[in-house]
Amino acid sequence: MTIDDVLNELRAKIADKLPKGITISGLEFEGPELVIYTTEPRAFADNGDIIRSLAKDLRKRIVVRPDPKMLLDAEQAIDKIKQIVPAESGLSDFYFDPDTGEVIIEAEKPGLVIGRHGSTLREITKHIGWTPKVVRTPPIESKTVKDIRQYLRTVKDDRKQILKTIGRKIHRPVSTKDQWIRVTTLGGCKEVGRSSFLLSTPETRILIDCGVNTGAESNGTPYLYVPEVSPLSSIDAVVITHAHLDHCGIVPLLFKYGYEGPIYATPPTRDLSALLQLDYIEVANREGKRPPYDSALIREALKRTITLNYGDVTDIAPDVRLTFYNSGHILGSAIAHFHIGEGLYNVAFTGDFKYEKSKLFDAAVNNFPRVETVIMESTYGGMHDMQPARREAEIEIQQVIKQTLARGGKVLIPTFAVGRSQEVMIVLEEAIRRGIIDNVPVYLDGMIWEATAIHTTYPEYLNVELQDMIFHKGQNPFLSPSFVQVDSPQKREKILADPSPCIVLATSGMMNGGPVMEYLKTYGHDRRNTLIFVGYQAEGTLGRRIQKGWNELPMSVGGKTEIMKINLQVTTVDGFSGHSDRRQLMEYVKRMDPRPERIITNHGDENKCLDLASSIYKKYKLETKSPMNLETIRLI
Amino acid sequence: MTIDDVLNELRAKIADKLPKGITISGLEFEGPELVIYTTEPRAFADNGDIIRSLAKDLRKRIVVRPDPKMLLDAEQAIDKIKQIVPAESGLSDFYFDPDTGEVIIEAEKPGLVIGRHGSTLREITKHIGWTPKVVRTPPIESKTVKDIRQYLRTVKDDRKQILKTIGRKIHRPVSTKDQWIRVTTLGGCKEVGRSSFLLSTPETRILIDCGVNTGAESNGTPYLYVPEVSPLSSIDAVVITHAHLDHCGIVPLLFKYGYEGPIYATPPTRDLSALLQLDYIEVANREGKRPPYDSALIREALKRTITLNYGDVTDIAPDVRLTFYNSGHILGSAIAHFHIGEGLYNVAFTGDFKYEKSKLFDAAVNNFPRVETVIMESTYGGMHDMQPARREAEIEIQQVIKQTLARGGKVLIPTFAVGRSQEVMIVLEEAIRRGIIDNVPVYLDGMIWEATAIHTTYPEYLNVELQDMIFHKGQNPFLSPSFVQVDSPQKREKILADPSPCIVLATSGMMNGGPVMEYLKTYGHDRRNTLIFVGYQAEGTLGRRIQKGWNELPMSVGGKTEIMKINLQVTTVDGFSGHSDRRQLMEYVKRMDPRPERIITNHGDENKCLDLASSIYKKYKLETKSPMNLETIRLI
Repeated sequence: MTIDDVLNELRAKIADKLPKGITISGLEFEGPELVIYTTEPRAFADNGDIIRSLAKDLRKRIVVRPDPKMLLDAEQAIDKIKQIVPAESGLSDFYFDPDTGEVIIEAEKPGLVIGRHGSTLREITKHIGWTPKVVRTPPIESKTVKDIRQYLRTVKDDRKQILKTIGRKIHRPVSTKDQWIRVTTLGGCKEVGRSSFLLSTPETRILIDCGVNTGAESNGTPYLYVPEVSPLSSIDAVVITHAHLDHCGIVPLLFKYGYEGPIYATPPTRDLSALLQLDYIEVANREGKRPPYDSALIREALKRTITLNYGDVTDIAPDVRLTFYNSGHILGSAIAHFHIGEGLYNVAFTGDFKYEKSKLFDAAVNNFPRVETVIMESTYGGMHDMQPARREAEIEIQQVIKQTLARGGKVLIPTFAVGRSQEVMIVLEEAIRRGIIDNVPVYLDGMIWEATAIHTTYPEYLNVELQDMIFHKGQNPFLSPSFVQVDSPQKREKILADPSPCIVLATSGMMNGGPVMEYLKTYGHDRRNTLIFVGYQAEGTLGRRIQKGWNELPMSVGGKTEIMKINLQVTTVDGFSGHSDRRQLMEYVKRMDPRPERIITNHGDENKCLDLASSIYKKYKLETKSPMNLETIRLI
Repeated sequence: MTIDDVLNELRAKIADKLPKGITISGLEFEGPELVIYTTEPRAFADNGDIIRSLAKDLRKRIVVRPDPKMLLDAEQAIDKIKQIVPAESGLSDFYFDPDTGEVIIEAEKPGLVIGRHGSTLREITKHIGWTPKVVRTPPIESKTVKDIRQYLRTVKDDRKQILKTIGRKIHRPVSTKDQWIRVTTLGGCKEVGRSSFLLSTPETRILIDCGVNTGAESNGTPYLYVPEVSPLSSIDAVVITHAHLDHCGIVPLLFKYGYEGPIYATPPTRDLSALLQLDYIEVANREGKRPPYDSALIREALKRTITLNYGDVTDIAPDVRLTFYNSGHILGSAIAHFHIGEGLYNVAFTGDFKYEKSKLFDAAVNNFPRVETVIMESTYGGMHDMQPARREAEIEIQQVIKQTLARGGKVLIPTFAVGRSQEVMIVLEEAIRRGIIDNVPVYLDGMIWEATAIHTTYPEYLNVELQDMIFHKGQNPFLSPSFVQVDSPQKREKILADPSPCIVLATSGMMNGGPVMEYLKTYGHDRRNTLIFVGYQAEGTLGRRIQKGWNELPMSVGGKTEIMKINLQVTTVDGFSGHSDRRQLMEYVKRMDPRPERIITNHGDENKCLDLASSIYKKYKLETKSPMNLETIRLI
C-alpha cells in the first residue's frame, strides 16, 4: 500500500460520511494534519460535528481549509479588510498563514474588527476567502517574532511542499516488524549541556533536543557522528523541549549535515530559540570564535518548524504521538510525552522543569494519560541541593533592594535574557506597585527587552494569574512604565552618568561579557551600590570570582587590562532558579500520576544524577538508571 | 598522512636497520601482517634476530616472504619436489599457500622429506623458491579441509588483493577523536541462540559472533538491521568464537548484505564452521525451508577468513588487537580478548566455555595480560545448575554401556556431530582399550566422522595429554579400529540387520531428524537396548519427549505416520556438557587473573543471566549487568 492508496482510501471514507451538498476539492497530509480543502468552508464550519466525528473515525488530526483558489492575494485582501473595518479599530498588522489559510489580524481594538456578533468578521471572510483571526496588537513589538513571521511568509511555497513531504512520511503505511523501543543517550548525561537523546523503534527515529555546551573547550556538542543517528537524513523528527542553548543550540547544524525533517516545538520555543541561536553566533563572532553555523541555517530550521501547543496530541511518525506539557522552566518550555504504538508504551522527557508555581509559570505537569518511563533532569538532584521557596527569595531580593536604594545606592542584577529576567521583572513590578520599594527606573540592557517582548506575544503561556491580570484586569506587568529599555550605547552612557538611584538588569548572567560589564565598571567602586546574583555562577566565570569574594579584578578598559577595585556590596539571592530543587524533584516523582515504572536521570553532574536515581529507587521502589552518554537503554 | 606514506616511512626505517647486502623488493600490508618481500629470504632466515628486532621497533607483526617472482609454478614445484624426495617417503599432498609463500608437504614419513639435518628441505627450497613445511599425512582425511584448501588455492589472486585491502585498512592512520568504547547487544542476551555483539570505538566497529537460533519460528537471527551495524560495509572485522551455529550460522549472510571485511577465527573454527553451515543449508533444503544463504556465500566467507592461533596477538583495526584463548568448549573454540588503544582498555568475550579439563581440551583460560570487562556465557548460570564432574560422567556412561552389552543389548547415543561426539569417543576408546567394556564396534553415523577427521587435522588444539599420546606415543585414540564410519545407506542397513552388540553414535543430538531416527526405529522395540542422552534436549524435540518418559511415539515410516512403542531403556548421563556448570562459572570469575572490573552475563535464559550476575555481584563485589538485546553499554 502506497501513501497515495492511503489518501484515496481516506478520501472515499470522508466522501461517504459528508452530508449531501458538501464536497471536498482536495485532500493532503501536511505535517501531522490531514487537510481537507473545500470550496465551501462555511458549510463545514456550520456543521462543527462533522470534523470531530471524522477525526474520531479516522484517528487523524483533521483540519478544513478553503481551497487555495478561493484565497484572495494578500495585498488585495489587506485592502479589502481595511475597507470593511472601521478606521478607529487601529489595525496594526496582518499575518497571512498559507499553512492554515488563516489571516491573523492585529488590531488595537479587536472588538471593532469582530463586529456585533461577529458580523464584521463574516463580512471579511466572504470577501477574502482567508479565515480571519483577530488578536490584540502585542503591547511590545518583538523584532524576532516580526522577522520570523515575515520570513515564513516569503518561503510559504517551499514550506507547503515541505509539510506535504513530512505529512506523507508521518502517515506512511508501516510493515509490521519487531517490537522494541530504545533510548540512546547522545549528550547531557552525567553532565549539564549538549542535551540530546534518540528515541527509536523499528520504524522511527526521533531526536529529542540537540544542545550545545557553550562553555566547553571540547565535547561541546552531542555525539552526532555515531551510527545510531547516521545518516541524519534517517531521523524522522527533532523535538525541542525548550529554547535554552543547552537544549537547542545545535539544531540548525543538523540541516548542514543532511537532516531534512521537521522540528517540533511550542511557538514560544521556536521564537526564543531563533533569538538565542542568533545571539550565539553573534557572540562567537565577536569573540573571534568560529560559530558552528550561520543565520541561513537558523532560517532553514525555522522553515521546517512545526509548532504545537501544550496538550496537542500529534502524530509525528507512523507509530509515535507527541504531546507537549508545561514544564514551568521558561516561556514555552515543555515536557515531551511520546505515546508509542497503539497503547504499547509511553515515555516522557522532562527537559528542564520547575515543580513549583512561579510568578510567570504554573508548576510542571506530572499528570499524564499514561507513562511508563520518565527521563528527568537532575540539575539539583544532590542530597543537599535545597533552594529557598520562591516566596522567600522574593522577600529577600526586595529587602536587599530596599536597603540599597535607602542608602542612595544602585542595584545591578546580572541575568540571562530568557527566564530569570522576566521572573525578577515581575517581582520588581509588584514591589514597586505596592510601594515596597521606591519607584525608581528599572533599566533592561542586553537581549532582555526583546525576550520580554516575546513573552508579551504569548500571554497564554504564562500562568493563570498573570493571564488573568493581562486579559481581564488590563494590567500587564511587563508594560509597567518602570521598565526602560536600553537600546543604544548613547542611552547606556546617559544612564551610567546619572547619579540617581536605579535598578539595572543586564546580561550576561555570569558576567563573562555583555553590557553588565559596563555597569560593573561604573558602579563597582561605590560601596553604596549592590550586585545581586540571582542565578548559578559557573566555575571560571567573573561572576563566580566576585561571588567568592575577590575584590580586585583584572578588567579590560579601552583595550588595556587594568586591575579594578570592587567596593560594592555583593549578595546572592537563591530561589529564582527555573530548575526544581532536590525536594521538588523528589515530589515530582512521588506525585506523578500514573506511577511510572522507571526513571532515568540525566542533566546534572554525575553525583547528582546518581544520588537522585538512588534516592528515587530507595524511597519509591521504582527502577532507576543514570546512563552515561552513548548508551542505549531498551524500554521494551 | 595516507597509507602509502605510512608504508614509505616503514620502508625507510626497515632499509635503515637491515644489515648491508640484504635488500627488500617489496613491502605491503596483507591482513594483519606487514610483509617484507625479498629475493634473499635465506639471508633473513640466517639472521633470525632481524625480524624480531624490526617487529619490536615497528610494533607490527612482520613476516618475510620470498619475492613472488622467485616462486616456481605450483605444478612445476611438485614435479621438482618429487624428483628430490625419495619415493618411499609417501608424499600424499601439497598445499601451496600464496598468502605465506609456503608449501605444506604432506608425507607419510616426514623424516625422509626433511633429510639429514634438513639437507633435503634445503635442496627443495633452492629449486622451488617456496618455503617448504613438512607435516605428517593426517590419519583420517577430512573432505572439508581438503575442499577448503583446494578452494583457497583457486582464489589465491582474489585473496591476495583482499588481504592487501584489509591490511591497508587495519593500518590506516587514525585521527584522534573522542575516546569511548561501547558494546551493543545484537542477539543472545537473556536467551540462547543468535549470539552477536558489536564492539565499537570512534574509529572501529567489530562484530563478535553472528549466530542463528535454528529452532526459532521468528527472531532467529541477530538484529542486523539496526543503525549500529548499518551499513554492514562499515564493520571493520567479524570475529567468531567457535563453530556452533548459534555463534556463526549467519556469518555467510553478512556478505549478501554488503559486508566485505575479514573474518577472524581459529583454523579449526574456520573448517568446522564451513561444515556446519553447509549442513545447515542442506537440512533446511531437505525440510523444505528456505535457507538464508547458499554455499556460494559460505565460500565467500572462507575467502575472507584470516585464521589466528591461540595466543597470536593481532592488529585487526588501528586501535584494536585481538587475541584468541582456549575456551575448552569445542575444537578451536576461543575466548576473544580485545586490547583497545595503547593500554586503554581490555574486554574479553568468553563465547561458550568449559572451565574444567576434559578428555579433549584443557580448561578455559582465565588468565589474561589485562582485562577490565568480561562478557560471559550463562547457559548453566542458575543457582541449581550443577553438573556431575566429568570423571563421574565417564564412570556412569561406562557402567550403563557395560550392563547393556552384558545383557546382549545395543547402545544408541544421539549426539551433535561436533564436540560431544568426540568427547564420548575418547571415553569409549579408553574403556575398550582398558577392557572396561567389551570390544564391540562403535558406529559413527551422520557428520560425526567428518567432524572427527577435522579433529585429527588439528591435534595441536587438543589437550596436552592427548597431544602427547598422539605425537609421542603414536597412539591416536580417534584411529582406534573400534570406530567404524557409516558412510552409506547400505552400510547402515547392514548394521541395523546385524544382531550382535554394538554402540552407535548418531546425529541429530536431539533426535529431531538425522540417521539416529533409523536406529531408534530398529532398536526401540527391544528392552535389552539402551538409549543414552549425553546432551541437552530442548523443549519440543523428540529427544525431550523420550526423556520425559513418553513410550508411544508418532514416527514417520515410509511416508506414513505410525505410533511406535518404545521399550528400550532410556537414561541420561549428565556431565559431558561443553558448558561450565554454575560452580565452574563462579570459579572462573573468582580465579580470574587479573580481577576484572565488570562482568556482563549473556547466553542463557533470562533468569540464568540475572541469577549469575546477581551472585557474582554479591559474592565478588564486581559490577555486573545482564542486558537485553539491543542495548548499548559504555565500557569507558
